[in-house]
Amino acid sequence: MADPIPIIGGTGALGYGLAVRWARGGQALVIGSRDAGRAQEAADRIRSEVEGARVEGLPNAEAAGRGPIVFLTVPFRAQSETLTNLKEALSAGQLLVDCTVPVAAAISGKATRTLGVWQGSAAQQAAEMVPEGVTVISALHSVSAPKLAGRGELDEDVLVCGDRKADKRRVAALIEQIDGLRAVNAGSLEMARIVETLTPMLIAINSRYKSHAGVKIIDLPDAHHWA
Amino acid sequence: MADPIPIIGGTGALGYGLAVRWARGGQALVIGSRDAGRAQEAADRIRSEVEGARVEGLPNAEAAGRGPIVFLTVPFRAQSETLTNLKEALSAGQLLVDCTVPVAAAISGKATRTLGVWQGSAAQQAAEMVPEGVTVISALHSVSAPKLAGRGELDEDVLVCGDRKADKRRVAALIEQIDGLRAVNAGSLEMARIVETLTPMLIAINSRYKSHAGVKIIDLPDAHHWA
Repeated sequence: MADPIPIIGGTGALGYGLAVRWARGGQALVIGSRDAGRAQEAADRIRSEVEGARVEGLPNAEAAGRGPIVFLTVPFRAQSETLTNLKEALSAGQLLVDCTVPVAAAISGKATRTLGVWQGSAAQQAAEMVPEGVTVISALHSVSAPKLAGRGELDEDVLVCGDRKADKRRVAALIEQIDGLRAVNAGSLEMARIVETLTPMLIAINSRYKSHAGVKIIDLPDAHHWA
Repeated sequence: MADPIPIIGGTGALGYGLAVRWARGGQALVIGSRDAGRAQEAADRIRSEVEGARVEGLPNAEAAGRGPIVFLTVPFRAQSETLTNLKEALSAGQLLVDCTVPVAAAISGKATRTLGVWQGSAAQQAAEMVPEGVTVISALHSVSAPKLAGRGELDEDVLVCGDRKADKRRVAALIEQIDGLRAVNAGSLEMARIVETLTPMLIAINSRYKSHAGVKIIDLPDAHHWA
């Protein structure tokens, strides 16, 4: 049986939306939250939405040890503190998929503006903070959280940044378990500086079009790049 | 008869590609170059490719006065110098569509990395440099120049940034004269900080997929936003 996917901050909009989609596909999940009660609540909610869902709710530090590929879906404001609290919980060999976006809303600024992160991007900040041997991958910045949590069909791309293709391929396989999502290799981890800014770009577009827009990369070869 | 479109730096790959597509649609053009001879050469080449093309080749400063909406397609390295040389040539009421991208290749760095521009983006640098009354719009960073210059069908989006929708709408109308391009309102001019980085992102993708990738924004409402 496949390993469960821990989702740190899984009670938030993005984490919850991902969890619902993965649960529908039969994937086992562990919802992590700072608050054990809220984690269990979210797990209960997923079970009530998806019959037979295999999902637990645990405190973040416990959740983080439950699977080899951990998704971090906390708001940027909480990213650094969360990673500090996970120092003992993560261990060498794990992949951490950072989905945070340094929007200025984190400090009461606009969601269409970004903060300058010293390391270059939220993902690179994460890479500096994780224990040795944990590898950070950056992904899932452009998929609308409410759309994920809904029942509509998806048909869009997820840009994946990381320094080794073999690691990105493993993350891509989980992303592509969700019907309608295609994972695109967007280069090394430093490219997260750019890919993270797709979120504020889409927020600017959404405010004009009243949409939940996403992104597709067109004119890629048909052959599956990850194979 | 519609005003011609001046393309400053129209002998370069992007400017030339745009010119060829516009010429095919019957749009009149003025190719600008630092070198009058090269401008004429490019105009001749377009006329040989597109029967009946209405195109002139002129020095940049002369070209810039020939139409109300001027496209600037020079490499970032040449942007500032070009705008200095156009100070007398541009006049109040004109729109300048800046297509430059501050990639680190301008200073022999990587094309997947950007330079920090003091004003925030190449477009905002342009806005600081144009004569009073000239308005800068940012667009056309994600369409592959070789694809434009080719004969293949296009089917992708162009993100347009600028501070007034009425100005962006006029630029959108020109962009959408090219079959297969849709102009998307990506917000105010400051959003060029993000939209300009689509180019290095696509370059990183292209180096992995051997593609000429472009971008589409999905899940926008069908109704035409610019109407």
